[in-house]
Amino acid sequence: MRDMNLRSLPPYFHALPRDVRRLCRANRAHTITSGMAAGYIQANLVILPADQARQFEEFCEKNPKSCPLVGMSAPGDWSAPALGQDLDIRTDLPLYRVWRDGVLVAEVTDIASFWRDDLVAFALGCSFSFENALLACGVSMRHFETGQGVSMYRTNIACTPVGPFSGPVVVSMRPFRSKDIIKATEISAMIPLAHGGPVQIGFPEEIGITDIATPDYGVATEIKSDELPVFWACGVTPQAVLDASRPAFAITHAPGAMLVTDIAIPDYDRLVKDFSVPII
Amino acid sequence: MRDMNLRSLPPYFHALPRDVRRLCRANRAHTITSGMAAGYIQANLVILPADQARQFEEFCEKNPKSCPLVGMSAPGDWSAPALGQDLDIRTDLPLYRVWRDGVLVAEVTDIASFWRDDLVAFALGCSFSFENALLACGVSMRHFETGQGVSMYRTNIACTPVGPFSGPVVVSMRPFRSKDIIKATEISAMIPLAHGGPVQIGFPEEIGITDIATPDYGVATEIKSDELPVFWACGVTPQAVLDASRPAFAITHAPGAMLVTDIAIPDYDRLVKDFSVPII
Repeated sequence: MRDMNLRSLPPYFHALPRDVRRLCRANRAHTITSGMAAGYIQANLVILPADQARQFEEFCEKNPKSCPLVGMSAPGDWSAPALGQDLDIRTDLPLYRVWRDGVLVAEVTDIASFWRDDLVAFALGCSFSFENALLACGVSMRHFETGQGVSMYRTNIACTPVGPFSGPVVVSMRPFRSKDIIKATEISAMIPLAHGGPVQIGFPEEIGITDIATPDYGVATEIKSDELPVFWACGVTPQAVLDASRPAFAITHAPGAMLVTDIAIPDYDRLVKDFSVPII
Repeated sequence: MRDMNLRSLPPYFHALPRDVRRLCRANRAHTITSGMAAGYIQANLVILPADQARQFEEFCEKNPKSCPLVGMSAPGDWSAPALGQDLDIRTDLPLYRVWRDGVLVAEVTDIASFWRDDLVAFALGCSFSFENALLACGVSMRHFETGQGVSMYRTNIACTPVGPFSGPVVVSMRPFRSKDIIKATEISAMIPLAHGGPVQIGFPEEIGITDIATPDYGVATEIKSDELPVFWACGVTPQAVLDASRPAFAITHAPGAMLVTDIAIPDYDRLVKDFSVPII
């Protein structure tokens, strides 16, 4: 009993993380991991040279809502066993981006030719994991229905800076009716590795969003009159921070092409059972 | 480290449950247990003859948000050891109400003279417990500031009926700004014995509340322009159900004069620590 709503669930929803990673390694995966491997933590990938890794790790620790640190590799170790069995961080994501001095220099399905012995990989939690949990509980989201992706906004909330790393918190927005505001808040709060609970409900201007119809990333999402916009800290935050800090060398995932880890959401089956019923 | 906000906390906030009960037994307690014995479950009291107790127990089990069953006594057993050490259910609440055929016949500080060997006591969770947790986390509530008590409303949500027991869900309302909507939702969801998470945020008309300024119980609470009303299932629900089902004999607590149990809120110290910091 893992979901209420089999018909409308995405393909690969019940796939295991290692199977998604094998598809990626064979370059046969979809390029977006949204809706895959429900029950497991997906992650944004940030790879930096070891000489910057300590400060970036501290940056993540000080900004846990935006940059929840799922795990990291030892320098040069592309296997990162804490994140998955039989993992090769160089091949097991659908698509990567390679950056020099903050400029995108390559978008590739395999980073073996860019690998160096001093590289440290950071896995930072991603909203795909809590979205999968919402889907499993029968909570639908407009951006899945429209297929247009989530709306994201830069806020007036500053990340706690560390060394060269600083920038605004970026948030994603999903409109919900009351009953799903409550479910989405309670469910996401139970998954701190996927950004945890929301940071704003109903008053976007309080976090510096003056025009909800014009997101800074992604396309606009309709908000109906019986809905409120709910905002979560978003994994685009570290991307914006890297854009601003322009490290000499970095590799990241491409947007939506996440690392699917073997780390299970704690108590996932009970969570789905508890939240698959009406709130009262 | 149990609270952020020592100056503004109510008297008896850090009292132990047994000390509150001893004050009640000596008839020296305040008559309202709001703000007392933070970290412990307070309860509405419903005492019924054993021939109705089984159906009332089933009613509670089928309506867990309104009537969270904290515990019950064996017939005639006023000590109810599952609810507290050295407990005397006949003397340890500040004030009781005695009902015959649904009519209030006495309001007393001691029900020893009304006790019968067939009486079963039900303890049903109360919002005072989650309100104390909110206070301990520095989340203030307008009805504490004004001292006027919480606003309550009958809704268009029907309790699941069992035998003679039926009626509408009654809800309490607290207005909050976004940051405290999120904290209050997450904190209350962690305390299912105190009604759990909210049942409605922001759209009172969806649950049949057409005039927020005219509560069915208590007085109106101001809602500021940067706040939304948040509604929780309320322990007045069983009171309304008893009003409607008019049992031949019943004893309840008087409004606000709760049973303070020895049952600790699970992980209370960690909860207070986690929620005493900003949400981001």
